Amino acid sequence: MRDDRIETGLREALSLAETGAPPRLAAALWHSVFPGGARLRPRLALAAAAACGNRHPALALGSAVAIELLHCASLVHDDLPCFDNGQVRRGRPSVQAAFGEALAVLAGDALIVLAFETLARSGVRSPSRMVELIGLVGRAVGMPGGITAGQAWECEPFVELSEYHRAKTGVLFAAATAAGGAAGGGDAGAWWLLGERLGEAYQVADDIRDVAADPAELGKPVGRDKVLGRRSAVAELGLEGALDRFDALLGEAAAAIPACPGRAALETLIVAESRRFVPKTVARVAA
Amino acid sequence: MRDDRIETGLREALSLAETGAPPRLAAALWHSVFPGGARLRPRLALAAAAACGNRHPALALGSAVAIELLHCASLVHDDLPCFDNGQVRRGRPSVQAAFGEALAVLAGDALIVLAFETLARSGVRSPSRMVELIGLVGRAVGMPGGITAGQAWECEPFVELSEYHRAKTGVLFAAATAAGGAAGGGDAGAWWLLGERLGEAYQVADDIRDVAADPAELGKPVGRDKVLGRRSAVAELGLEGALDRFDALLGEAAAAIPACPGRAALETLIVAESRRFVPKTVARVAA
Repeated sequence: MRDDRIETGLREALSLAETGAPPRLAAALWHSVFPGGARLRPRLALAAAAACGNRHPALALGSAVAIELLHCASLVHDDLPCFDNGQVRRGRPSVQAAFGEALAVLAGDALIVLAFETLARSGVRSPSRMVELIGLVGRAVGMPGGITAGQAWECEPFVELSEYHRAKTGVLFAAATAAGGAAGGGDAGAWWLLGERLGEAYQVADDIRDVAADPAELGKPVGRDKVLGRRSAVAELGLEGALDRFDALLGEAAAAIPACPGRAALETLIVAESRRFVPKTVARVAA
Repeated sequence: MRDDRIETGLREALSLAETGAPPRLAAALWHSVFPGGARLRPRLALAAAAACGNRHPALALGSAVAIELLHCASLVHDDLPCFDNGQVRRGRPSVQAAFGEALAVLAGDALIVLAFETLARSGVRSPSRMVELIGLVGRAVGMPGGITAGQAWECEPFVELSEYHRAKTGVLFAAATAAGGAAGGGDAGAWWLLGERLGEAYQVADDIRDVAADPAELGKPVGRDKVLGRRSAVAELGLEGALDRFDALLGEAAAAIPACPGRAALETLIVAESRRFVPKTVARVAA
């Protein structure tokens, strides 16, 4: 399921950031990005671009790489002591555990910058489309409604669950399908909802994994939501209710795929992939 | 000396980030940016653009605003407990003192994103020049040699002083003159050195202010370099040696202004402005 274009694109971006750099920060960047997780967001971006006809392949790959770098940045900052104080990530020490807090802050900052540089560079031949995609990706990570805002809602006294999930996770998936669709030749607005629903489904699945997964399989400790007093679909709806919600969101996602040459293949891919979101022990037989 | 275009541009950028945002993070962004300091970097960008003939005024302003947002982001993150643990900034509580560490991390992140969004948006009419400027600004703040890298050099066991100063401060001034010059119609490469020298001069002046300024005038505590065991031009060269170095860098800066219609006016402006870098009590009579 690994896509070599994504791994190569990420490696190229990090290599450009490396020559003459402070060695420990450079090492922290590699640690943040490799080995990766499932690379769901960039693969979704490339799948959307392919389904549309892949009009601007360099821009599709640039967007995919940028979105994955931003996702990695968010994980590095989420693991800081002032947030989750995560010690383990993807089965090994988190960046802050391995390199310390200062380098974890800087690694996140540098990855955000690198993401926008990568995206801009990939759009030299289609600059006006690239400007659109920078706006779109910026909207997904920044203020007022991106993942930074989603994290900040945890510092507010009151927050509605779906609003928070949308901002926290859904929006980067939404940027992935919208950017991929637009780079492929489609309309960004039409491709936004698919990713948003998938992202919400993924967040619900993440809440389910937090109570039902095997820590070795997950690569990080379980039961953290309860320990940290965080809002979670399982706490709110119960395990069965959360599984219902997951199924409903997947159905909405499939229905949201815009008309395009590769619609049927994309739907098959999404259903197959999303089976892996929830642990086998609690998963229902997928349609 | 205040430039209303810059204040208005910054206000517009923050306003776009505000509607529907988590209120405390939105407040932390305003606190990070207003009231500002001397706005040296964006004024330098606009001055370079004007000296060149101001070919792309929207892009010049977008670059100026983006660079100031990135400067503010760097101050917010520099004040975190894992770096300087700064409690006071510009005469009032730092962002982390006023809003806590988590919102300070997020405010810095959101400002970085907002900077690139602002720059991209300002270049819709001159997209290929804008792509160049995103690369240039990214180089100044990211890896391998931007301010993020400059901060990371403090985590390395060995570092050469001028290398560190260049990365830490010089480079954002360099981006200001290069971006301004390019947005004005000049060549970015030719305009880089001027800002780099001014930035190094400013950093030396900052080291001088840390030992010689009145804390009330400075808006933050003095003597911090020594307390924090930081490298400083004064520690390295003595106060007289640091003043010599400051004068030499200013001379190099003036000599580095590229040929352009407004060269003479720009040189006058730079000499006048830079007199204010060092405290009156130790300043020599400027030429």
